[in-house]
Amino acid sequence: MRREGSVLDRLRVPVVQAPLAGGPSTPELATAAVRAGALGFLAGGYRGAEALREDICHVRGAVAGPFGVNLFVPGDGTVDAAEIESYAERVRREAAGVGAEAGQPAWSDDEWQSKLDVVLAERPAVVSFTFGCPERSLCDALHGAGVEAWVTVTEAGEAEQAAGAGADALVVQGVEAGGHRGSFLDRDGVGEVGMIALLRLVASRVDLPLVAAGGICDGYAAAAALVAGARAAQVGTALLDTPEAGTSPAYREALRLTGPTRLTRAFTGRRARGIVNGFMDRHDAAAPSAYPHVHSLTAPMRAAARARGDPDLINLWAGQGHALMPHGVSAEEVIARLAREIRAALDGARARM
Amino acid sequence: MRREGSVLDRLRVPVVQAPLAGGPSTPELATAAVRAGALGFLAGGYRGAEALREDICHVRGAVAGPFGVNLFVPGDGTVDAAEIESYAERVRREAAGVGAEAGQPAWSDDEWQSKLDVVLAERPAVVSFTFGCPERSLCDALHGAGVEAWVTVTEAGEAEQAAGAGADALVVQGVEAGGHRGSFLDRDGVGEVGMIALLRLVASRVDLPLVAAGGICDGYAAAAALVAGARAAQVGTALLDTPEAGTSPAYREALRLTGPTRLTRAFTGRRARGIVNGFMDRHDAAAPSAYPHVHSLTAPMRAAARARGDPDLINLWAGQGHALMPHGVSAEEVIARLAREIRAALDGARARM
Repeated sequence: MRREGSVLDRLRVPVVQAPLAGGPSTPELATAAVRAGALGFLAGGYRGAEALREDICHVRGAVAGPFGVNLFVPGDGTVDAAEIESYAERVRREAAGVGAEAGQPAWSDDEWQSKLDVVLAERPAVVSFTFGCPERSLCDALHGAGVEAWVTVTEAGEAEQAAGAGADALVVQGVEAGGHRGSFLDRDGVGEVGMIALLRLVASRVDLPLVAAGGICDGYAAAAALVAGARAAQVGTALLDTPEAGTSPAYREALRLTGPTRLTRAFTGRRARGIVNGFMDRHDAAAPSAYPHVHSLTAPMRAAARARGDPDLINLWAGQGHALMPHGVSAEEVIARLAREIRAALDGARARM
Repeated sequence: MRREGSVLDRLRVPVVQAPLAGGPSTPELATAAVRAGALGFLAGGYRGAEALREDICHVRGAVAGPFGVNLFVPGDGTVDAAEIESYAERVRREAAGVGAEAGQPAWSDDEWQSKLDVVLAERPAVVSFTFGCPERSLCDALHGAGVEAWVTVTEAGEAEQAAGAGADALVVQGVEAGGHRGSFLDRDGVGEVGMIALLRLVASRVDLPLVAAGGICDGYAAAAALVAGARAAQVGTALLDTPEAGTSPAYREALRLTGPTRLTRAFTGRRARGIVNGFMDRHDAAAPSAYPHVHSLTAPMRAAARARGDPDLINLWAGQGHALMPHGVSAEEVIARLAREIRAALDGARARM
């Protein structure tokens, strides 16, 4: 079902701020994005339901204009306990090196139902989902509350499933994107498709507004996504080193070095793209598919490494374009630059034809 | 050194026909591409030097207009003999199933010097290189003959090296692209970057005209590449099922089925993207990095499978956009469609801003 009048029609700048769960997300960042004319986002993932409610109220109090909330769809918790225990042994040794202990590898639904209650009550313009497809009944409930339901997809089959469940728009996540793959299943090779090819494949199969994600660090890349059929470009890495983001100092420092990125399960038990560092190199091959068990297992080690300023044990999520990200520029200015470059890119290409 | 007046300035349509070595390349395909206003290409790889000379004369006799020749830069032949022998045992069993024997796993320079003599004498508008960077002296010799030297690159470091060697333009190959990775080294993870991010990274480091490759199967994807800074879009998969291509019937048949692609060394000993089939599934994990040894090892098996119409043992090279490729349409019409869609994509995006 395609509903008319998406929030995407009302943006001054065709840019969506990526939710950036796990630290970088702040109400200040979402506020700045809205102020700049983009769609701001709050990350619900890893955040308590009440804290999320406060974040929503914070943004609403600071700026007029639509914003979204991103939620992680919980998995069924099926994992191989022996694999996790064997991996935990590795994490224990690494954690000891920074004076930390390994965490408990436990399943959690990340307060799923409580957060749904929050968004249904607080009614942000958009709720987007990652790691799975919401049920039809949930999309219906969101529509009833006047909230758009967006679903993150990484292959055409997921896009069709999301359209069937009543999604209003899709976040089409190319393999270039930093952070977790939003794939419904965490399986090697699933949805590892370049952004433009994926946009074209999805556009050929579903008739929904598309938001493109995947290594977009400047307006030329954003314009490419728009030309290939996206209604907006989602930008995450480019905002990580803005003052409004909650990115840790050690993470910011690492982002100033150029280096290749890779997909890995080493930090969380689910494929995510980050800058290659020592922990990834040493443990990637051994990391099981077990989310969020591995996330909670490595969390104390990562926190300790952040506190010590040691980037070698931190998940350095970044997209493939990260060498081009701005540093020390305000989020509003990053988005204003994107808008200027998008226009220049479109005008330039048309003039050359 | 940036030379003025690239052949890219003289194309009616900003499209480059991918060379498509190993069967699909024909003089008829290159001729049709030139006729349609794109840059046609002949594949020098796997082709005898004299046959290549005849191909060049064929195209030159059939159409006025520039075209290029692609050559494979030979490697140093360093391989692990035990790994190859162990892999040969697998190939022998598979080959026996189609009444073939395994080939000899041998190094070859693919008649490198003879082919260089041919292109220096016949002087096509462009000679492009894959699998490595030509020496500065070779680029100088090509320039002396009035021939542009293009280099295929898959990461920014390779782009800088090629620029330093005197390349006139770069073919920027995104990870979406079908067929072999053009990376200078065959190492996991090297140059596995999405097309748009890679274009932006390369454009930030070298000042050369860029040709973008990577899963481009329609004009919207091609326009995206142009907007992101490419001077032309290279298109391969979209031309595989044209009557002018030399694609085998079994390969054409397999291209009509949609299915995921993957990078694999199983067929040639070097990473290449193809549609997942039985041979890839059974042997990918065991395949050594040993090109062209594994290529010659599997060649008789693949030829026998092609003759029998069995797609399960054939290298089904295809880009990630292959589900969108046209079927049974002439190469000239494919390129004319691309040109129309490129215009529509650019105009549409500008109008929506």
